[in-house]
Amino acid sequence: MKSIISFTLLSIVTIVSQAQVDSTHFKFVKRIYEEALVNGKSHEFLTTLCNDIGPRLSGSPQAAEAVEYTSQLMDSLGFEVLKRDVDVPHWVRGDIEMGYFEVSPNSKTRIRVTALGGSVKTDDLLTAKVIEVQNFGDLSRLGKDAIQDKIVFFNRPMNPVHLSTFTAYGGGVDQRWAGAMEAAKFGAKGVLVRSLTLRLDTLPHTGSMGYKDGVEKIPAAAISTVDAEALHKALKSNPDLSVSFKLSCETLPDAHSHNVIGQLIGTKYPEKYIAVGGHLDSWDLGTGAHDDGAGCVQSIEALRILNDLGYTPKHTIRAVMFMNEENGLRGAKKYAERAKSIPEEHVMAVETDAGGSAPLGFRVDGNKKQVSYVQGFTPYFEPYGVYWIKEGGSGADVGQLKNDVVLLAGLSPNSQRYFDYHHAASDIIEAVNPRELELGAAALAAFIYLIDQTIDQQ
Amino acid sequence: MKSIISFTLLSIVTIVSQAQVDSTHFKFVKRIYEEALVNGKSHEFLTTLCNDIGPRLSGSPQAAEAVEYTSQLMDSLGFEVLKRDVDVPHWVRGDIEMGYFEVSPNSKTRIRVTALGGSVKTDDLLTAKVIEVQNFGDLSRLGKDAIQDKIVFFNRPMNPVHLSTFTAYGGGVDQRWAGAMEAAKFGAKGVLVRSLTLRLDTLPHTGSMGYKDGVEKIPAAAISTVDAEALHKALKSNPDLSVSFKLSCETLPDAHSHNVIGQLIGTKYPEKYIAVGGHLDSWDLGTGAHDDGAGCVQSIEALRILNDLGYTPKHTIRAVMFMNEENGLRGAKKYAERAKSIPEEHVMAVETDAGGSAPLGFRVDGNKKQVSYVQGFTPYFEPYGVYWIKEGGSGADVGQLKNDVVLLAGLSPNSQRYFDYHHAASDIIEAVNPRELELGAAALAAFIYLIDQTIDQQ
Repeated sequence: MKSIISFTLLSIVTIVSQAQVDSTHFKFVKRIYEEALVNGKSHEFLTTLCNDIGPRLSGSPQAAEAVEYTSQLMDSLGFEVLKRDVDVPHWVRGDIEMGYFEVSPNSKTRIRVTALGGSVKTDDLLTAKVIEVQNFGDLSRLGKDAIQDKIVFFNRPMNPVHLSTFTAYGGGVDQRWAGAMEAAKFGAKGVLVRSLTLRLDTLPHTGSMGYKDGVEKIPAAAISTVDAEALHKALKSNPDLSVSFKLSCETLPDAHSHNVIGQLIGTKYPEKYIAVGGHLDSWDLGTGAHDDGAGCVQSIEALRILNDLGYTPKHTIRAVMFMNEENGLRGAKKYAERAKSIPEEHVMAVETDAGGSAPLGFRVDGNKKQVSYVQGFTPYFEPYGVYWIKEGGSGADVGQLKNDVVLLAGLSPNSQRYFDYHHAASDIIEAVNPRELELGAAALAAFIYLIDQTIDQQ
Repeated sequence: MKSIISFTLLSIVTIVSQAQVDSTHFKFVKRIYEEALVNGKSHEFLTTLCNDIGPRLSGSPQAAEAVEYTSQLMDSLGFEVLKRDVDVPHWVRGDIEMGYFEVSPNSKTRIRVTALGGSVKTDDLLTAKVIEVQNFGDLSRLGKDAIQDKIVFFNRPMNPVHLSTFTAYGGGVDQRWAGAMEAAKFGAKGVLVRSLTLRLDTLPHTGSMGYKDGVEKIPAAAISTVDAEALHKALKSNPDLSVSFKLSCETLPDAHSHNVIGQLIGTKYPEKYIAVGGHLDSWDLGTGAHDDGAGCVQSIEALRILNDLGYTPKHTIRAVMFMNEENGLRGAKKYAERAKSIPEEHVMAVETDAGGSAPLGFRVDGNKKQVSYVQGFTPYFEPYGVYWIKEGGSGADVGQLKNDVVLLAGLSPNSQRYFDYHHAASDIIEAVNPRELELGAAALAAFIYLIDQTIDQQ
């Protein structure tokens, strides 16, 4: 039997109730999009960042080069540039990453592995029997007798049923972050974690992992999904299978680094800030094109567009290159600490750290009034394929600024392809479509413009 | 001075007024998406079509193979399969396509060219001075004296300012379709047309062109955008530059081919039809992955999903593989003629011929009541990233069925990347993201389901 239910389209009801659009703003948003689509520079900037500089792991020479490049770039664009000190973790991968299993003596099957960020190295070659698990509950059920001295193989795939691949990622990332510490409690010698991607590919996808005080630090590596399937199959035939892997990574003393800020000084509220940011550091396997070179260049480009259109902001507008989002968030924490202590009052901070694909919406965090207010911007964006402004999930870097005043936001691009590239060797400039990238910069410029123009009338 | 204008969000107002969602339908749509995202087969089918069969130009052996493959596939899935005869144009590219210009004697610069579909071949090597134009107006202004015996180089880029790349394409395609006939009126010996893509790449993008009775048939080739820029630059320095190109293409007698239909017979209205279709033919440079292998496999997959979920349709539901959309529309015309003469009453026909990227909406054509009715489906789709149902632009194949009764529709995916691949060697399986492809199949299955369930209650 069918029941008719009323479907509460909250966001759409909000739009209609606020569906009054200022024609001046509407026209200026159009100019922003025209500038981005016809003269956009994001892709040019990103090509330099990825191809001339390369991967930008915190503490690396390339991260330092990226600090210099973005400083000089923003200076050349006419922004006031600030470099802010921050010490960052300095983990290095080293030269050796290899692995294999042996179905029979002298019959090695290679597996593509990569150290998880923060892992200790192996003592020479680590060879041990393997126990495959799906989750931490399995570890408890199996117990120490079954796990002691083995390599634990976490093989729970990301769940493809979610439209948002970030939801699927959120459901799988515990294996990567805490797999080593949880397995070590039961005496494991090392862990292999199925790469967090929805594709079957031969690329291991890295990412950060942690240890726990008082629990042994054991080596942790990601294994490509293709090899995870092969290992799973081999274990079905031969549960006594041994796996060998070798990692040469290590953690060095903290390194000196910087957040980089470019700003256009506000004419009415120079000491109130609107910030747009991405993170300048990246993992080291690809060149950090989607994650998060895209966000850095879009942030710079958003200010360039406004500046080149002759826009004079009321508030001081900042493009912030946060350092060390990937393995520490030190840059964002330092930025927020300083904002609190000076103080630098932020009226809004928006981040772009979900890749350079076509933007579909914004996620915002703030009080109910703020959220409702910015949802009223939707009609300005709808002609350009940005369909929604939803509450929650603004992002990790801007999240550090959370207080009772600031509105936090994050750009939400189409997520379907994101984990194809995420933290893998495939995250390179060729994976980014120029128009989709420029559309993201335009959405951010328009968002900043609307906040800057109207927030004091709220 | 600012004026506050009221922004008429017609589609959204429609949604809200009809925002009552049947919970049974809502749940079934959820099951459709779950099936597509977890067990989707579109990508598997498309891999076979692209990699085992290949490009499928009308009249080619591969087009015939694709007829057999889709017939057998749909039979194996439990659909009733019909093969319907249709004769199609049979143009072949031949073995030779080459071109160059000479800045100075013995200094050849290669240009990457490809014959436009339907072009005559060159008489051996065609060498002539070049005249660059932007549009047909330029031809009239320059006149016969300037154009006679030359190669006309149409070099108007697609306009990047439009969000929809199809709008940009529509603004440029006259050069490709009618460039040869218009230039020949002024005595030109051949035409080169800037490839219709928004990227700067080295791939020529082909596509259909036409001749006019009574006007000389001159050879017409596409030139890659990178080479178009190079030629433009060379002409600035040397307006007397000669270009040479050679094409070996020819038109053979019409070939015998087929539309392929797979159907699930309706239980309540077996003689009323709901059709979903794509076109089985493709251009020959790539393997027709986005254009339109994607549409074919999505159409088959939409029926597979409904069938495998145990759904028994009220109307007869058809997946239609139209033959010859690219250079003749013969399949669609034949299908529509037969639908009219039998008659086979179609209540709805939806096509998917805009690539395999993430679906964002539907375009529908029908009377006002029909359009408004289906716009009421929006709340079923919004959770899955399909945000709008707009009037106009359903598509070329289903457009042949237009009458006073049928509702026509077309799936609208994100168009940003489409012309990167369109009619070029890059339109291969690797350009299609599996999840985005499966989401399109799910959207089509849900659309068919909602029409099938509710159209008789309209």
